[in-house]
Amino acid sequence: MSIKVIVNGANGRMGQEAIIALNADPRFELVAQTGRADDLASIIKETNADVVVDLTTADSVFENAKTIITAGAHPVIGTSGLQPEEFMTLKQLAAEKNLGGIVVPNFSIGAVLMMRYARDAAKYLPDVEIIEMHHDGKLDAPSGTAIKTAELIHETRKSLPEQKQLRETITGSRGAEKHGVHIHAVRLPGLVAHQQVLFGGNAETLTIRHDSMHRSSFMPGLLLACEKVGDFHQLMYGLENLLD
Amino acid sequence: MSIKVIVNGANGRMGQEAIIALNADPRFELVAQTGRADDLASIIKETNADVVVDLTTADSVFENAKTIITAGAHPVIGTSGLQPEEFMTLKQLAAEKNLGGIVVPNFSIGAVLMMRYARDAAKYLPDVEIIEMHHDGKLDAPSGTAIKTAELIHETRKSLPEQKQLRETITGSRGAEKHGVHIHAVRLPGLVAHQQVLFGGNAETLTIRHDSMHRSSFMPGLLLACEKVGDFHQLMYGLENLLD
Amino acid sequence: MSIKVIVNGANGRMGQEAIIALNADPRFELVAQTGRADDLASIIKETNADVVVDLTTADSVFENAKTIITAGAHPVIGTSGLQPEEFMTLKQLAAEKNLGGIVVPNFSIGAVLMMRYARDAAKYLPDVEIIEMHHDGKLDAPSGTAIKTAELIHETRKSLPEQKQLRETITGSRGAEKHGVHIHAVRLPGLVAHQQVLFGGNAETLTIRHDSMHRSSFMPGLLLACEKVGDFHQLMYGLENLLD
Amino acid sequence: MSIKVIVNGANGRMGQEAIIALNADPRFELVAQTGRADDLASIIKETNADVVVDLTTADSVFENAKTIITAGAHPVIGTSGLQPEEFMTLKQLAAEKNLGGIVVPNFSIGAVLMMRYARDAAKYLPDVEIIEMHHDGKLDAPSGTAIKTAELIHETRKSLPEQKQLRETITGSRGAEKHGVHIHAVRLPGLVAHQQVLFGGNAETLTIRHDSMHRSSFMPGLLLACEKVGDFHQLMYGLENLLD
Repeated sequence: MSIKVIVNGANGRMGQEAIIALNADPRFELVAQTGRADDLASIIKETNADVVVDLTTADSVFENAKTIITAGAHPVIGTSGLQPEEFMTLKQLAAEKNLGGIVVPNFSIGAVLMMRYARDAAKYLPDVEIIEMHHDGKLDAPSGTAIKTAELIHETRKSLPEQKQLRETITGSRGAEKHGVHIHAVRLPGLVAHQQVLFGGNAETLTIRHDSMHRSSFMPGLLLACEKVGDFHQLMYGLENLLD
Repeated sequence: MSIKVIVNGANGRMGQEAIIALNADPRFELVAQTGRADDLASIIKETNADVVVDLTTADSVFENAKTIITAGAHPVIGTSGLQPEEFMTLKQLAAEKNLGGIVVPNFSIGAVLMMRYARDAAKYLPDVEIIEMHHDGKLDAPSGTAIKTAELIHETRKSLPEQKQLRETITGSRGAEKHGVHIHAVRLPGLVAHQQVLFGGNAETLTIRHDSMHRSSFMPGLLLACEKVGDFHQLMYGLENLLD
Repeated sequence: MSIKVIVNGANGRMGQEAIIALNADPRFELVAQTGRADDLASIIKETNADVVVDLTTADSVFENAKTIITAGAHPVIGTSGLQPEEFMTLKQLAAEKNLGGIVVPNFSIGAVLMMRYARDAAKYLPDVEIIEMHHDGKLDAPSGTAIKTAELIHETRKSLPEQKQLRETITGSRGAEKHGVHIHAVRLPGLVAHQQVLFGGNAETLTIRHDSMHRSSFMPGLLLACEKVGDFHQLMYGLENLLD
Repeated sequence: MSIKVIVNGANGRMGQEAIIALNADPRFELVAQTGRADDLASIIKETNADVVVDLTTADSVFENAKTIITAGAHPVIGTSGLQPEEFMTLKQLAAEKNLGGIVVPNFSIGAVLMMRYARDAAKYLPDVEIIEMHHDGKLDAPSGTAIKTAELIHETRKSLPEQKQLRETITGSRGAEKHGVHIHAVRLPGLVAHQQVLFGGNAETLTIRHDSMHRSSFMPGLLLACEKVGDFHQLMYGLENLLD
């Protein structure tokens, strides 16, 4: 029997992509496409939806998530902007109902694996820098994924690399620094979304690189979340929980 | 107190590199440098060595390892060519003496991590190819590391990628195939030893790349093995056992 | 005053892309979109078109080109499949009318530059291999661009690299060979169209790499051809003629 | 008949490398190895040297070059630090004697080609960034080669890329800027000397990358300069003059 799914935020780019992906996959039945004007709670009840994918905006995500959990559907939250204390509130709410759900800041399986391996490699190779490369329409730098990667590296590396007395003859050449990890942000037309994590060792280097060519790269992770969320009994954070 | 180490096969390139590395590290005391002409058993007794690093040749490695274990020193075997049944015999011998030892086909930490991540990523992204690139003095292709990587991928991937009806207009263009993994071997002057493992997903790719610039890249792994081998109570296989 | 352009083959993917690009550029006026059913000669006369872009199929390109030249418009031929003797016939026809035109097998500026530099570098660094990487829907291997690149390298390199006695333990690992240049073809989902040309020297390598993310990468070259073709007085071959 | 060569600065690392390379090549006869303590003018006369390779230090290079030219030998100047006005003085001196010579800031053929192609590509693809990557013992950033590359790009690009209102959430993330070209400097153990020049176009990118693994990468360029310098009748600047 297929899993009944509602896409909330159906008119956005990610929403449209999700609808295409869900319709093409026989494991799922898309029972409603909803937006800001709809009464989400009622539609969940009418359709008897198992899962609601939220792909809306930072200002509505917390209310949407509460509505979904209260209505007894499994939330798959792909919208960014949820605050840590809001997440804790939702986690509590889900626990009271013994209901599984998941909040996913990055649905790309490749990006999640890149971060997993970067976090692990930092234990053995503490010298590391990040180069993120995006299209020139991305106006902030460095990217959220680069900052997240630096945080994960910081969690596991046991020692900071030796500080060298380096001289920048042009300011900024050594990039940004987050937890002692240098981050370099390239912005060029023709690029989409790419990141390299470079580890330096003794006469060797290890590079972990992710390239995303299109937002459809998020769909396998989104479908995986929709499939697995029913097996949970709590609200989880991060796609990595689904990659055994 | 420092760990007493013998380097067996001291005159080879790797032996010379190991001597430099051990002498430079206060955790270790290099108590002897031995070769084919020496009576290894006697020298282990005289020097009261804790660890013997074997960096000799495929035809002597099994006898050397037996000698080391019988003499009660911890073996760190960096020589390739040990057969699986020989390894089992040695493992039995070490178990009888409750003695720790390790056989290490590749001492490079970066290469071991590359293989670890490739093995893991294959669970989620079954479409994968390997490009290995070496100096033009390397006369066999593909490299042992590439074949080993394909075997690790084969262990974990749940499905084979869909077979496409591909037409090679020039024979060999799609490379070698090992367990359904395509392997491409580049040979050029100027290269040293490099490998990329490319995973393809939905509008995204994940690349894990290792570059070795010099054989000194094997020394941190060798020193780690010398340090940790005394904590074991059995004969282990592979540096990955030392990388928590 | 804007240049009047007809797109012939308007219903194909490239045709559709060309229409978008031409409409967005004030240098051009799109005066007609034509296809197989249309009388191209009459439409050229009626619209007084300056340029006709042909993006049709291999079986019609020669006839289309003759029609365009006979009607006195400047042809920009983006369709592949024109035979060398057909090109010579068309060149003769254009010369008789003192009419400029251009045949362009690859409109991507980046790909044309990659081939230009590969051709040049081969003079100084004769050791070279090609890695081309495409999406898994591309069923032939190696790519036409890879073969063309090998031909250009062959034109300029003065010596063949020394032949080594290499042993393939798995057949195909060293790839295809064209004019002594090894070509490796990777096919994976997530890739689009990519090529690396690797030159090996003395303890150094030089890599020239082109990445195409989408067929819109062909549009700047197509617009450049439409702009410049009116300045010519003969039929040219290859976008490189427009890149001073 | 072989070309008689003196290496001045024979005790330095580059001097030692040059001696090995010249001795191994039958086109050359190494007639003297000189240093700070030697009377270079007398030795040139005694040995009847054709060419003097200067690999000394910034503070002595100008005097050495004057001595070489005055003595009538062809100078191959590999020492950096010559000032533009000093070069002009030497050029004048060589012209008066109708004597060929060459000043070479970078002997690597691969690096010279990388800069040549970067300079050329900037005409067609004005959006470009540079990533240079060096071992962590290199204490200045960005590298001289990166700055030189930015200058060459500046010479040929016709337009500056459109300025976007980018927000750096961590200072330095967008790197250094030289003539509007962003430069990113990575410093890690395990690296040697590497540079990528990334050009962005319409849904495509072009990358030109140079990797140097060891200082022996400078030798083919040095030998080429020693061979060709006798054919000149003036003082030249840059190895590119020798690469037809």
